[in-house]
Amino acid sequence: MSPAQVAAALDAALVVDNSPFLKALVQQIRANDPYGTYRNWADELLLKPYVMPKKQRREIPVEGEVDPLTIGRILGFYRAIAARIEEETGQLSQVVVDLSHEGFGWALIFSGRLILVSKTLRDAQRFGFDTLEKLNAEGEKLVQRGVELAQKYPEVCDI
Amino acid sequence: MSPAQVAAALDAALVVDNSPFLKALVQQIRANDPYGTYRNWADELLLKPYVMPKKQRREIPVEGEVDPLTIGRILGFYRAIAARIEEETGQLSQVVVDLSHEGFGWALIFSGRLILVSKTLRDAQRFGFDTLEKLNAEGEKLVQRGVELAQKYPEVCDI
Repeated sequence: MSPAQVAAALDAALVVDNSPFLKALVQQIRANDPYGTYRNWADELLLKPYVMPKKQRREIPVEGEVDPLTIGRILGFYRAIAARIEEETGQLSQVVVDLSHEGFGWALIFSGRLILVSKTLRDAQRFGFDTLEKLNAEGEKLVQRGVELAQKYPEVCDI
Repeated sequence: MSPAQVAAALDAALVVDNSPFLKALVQQIRANDPYGTYRNWADELLLKPYVMPKKQRREIPVEGEVDPLTIGRILGFYRAIAARIEEETGQLSQVVVDLSHEGFGWALIFSGRLILVSKTLRDAQRFGFDTLEKLNAEGEKLVQRGVELAQKYPEVCDI
């Protein structure tokens, strides 16, 4: 590694260490690693597939089915949000991702009868974030909104 | 048709005529008939694939993927419920059916942040009802519960 690469890796490690959301996401990835392939990988390396510059994402065709690895990444993202909301509120929640073959659909996180996160998905083939910071910001934003809703309508969570 | 068959068909027609839910379900089926194949079919005939004795359903294997026609029937069922709730409450709602390849999953109907209908699906390959009356009763029950929730938490629907 060049000094610049080392510095970038250290920066990324610092971002992960300071983000409860990214740590939750890493946990999701490690939980889906039955053969221990990633055991010795650094956290920030595991998150790399989530980060891709917009230009590169735009080159992914949206005509075909969504790649199973991409679906796995989408699920991991929303499951990490669900895990964080659970940590903050104690509310157990479910994650449902409903994708058509054309990459359109819904990602929902709900607890009882309350939807904590509701996102329409489009061009899911291109799911990804420009930078690690943007991945973190989007995840944290959805966590905060979910926590607010769970706290505002606890009764609807408990139906 | 034998006299008994004629009597059964007339009975079925009467059940459909008296059920807003079954009429909504028929509408769903006709809406998915772009070539007009069913144009001249009686309503009760269109609903026949929903009715299958338990014994016969049990013979359907649950190892394989869920048949696309079965998925279509499941979607039709929940979309008809959504249409009925909309009629009763004026609340627009979304239907999401998330099925794994093993026939497990979720059927959700939601409006804003409120889940009006929440059902776990299992053995979806065997989706069906013993009789037309039971199909109607299950649909109506879910409609009523959904309407109650929409009326109890209108604020959550409007988020």
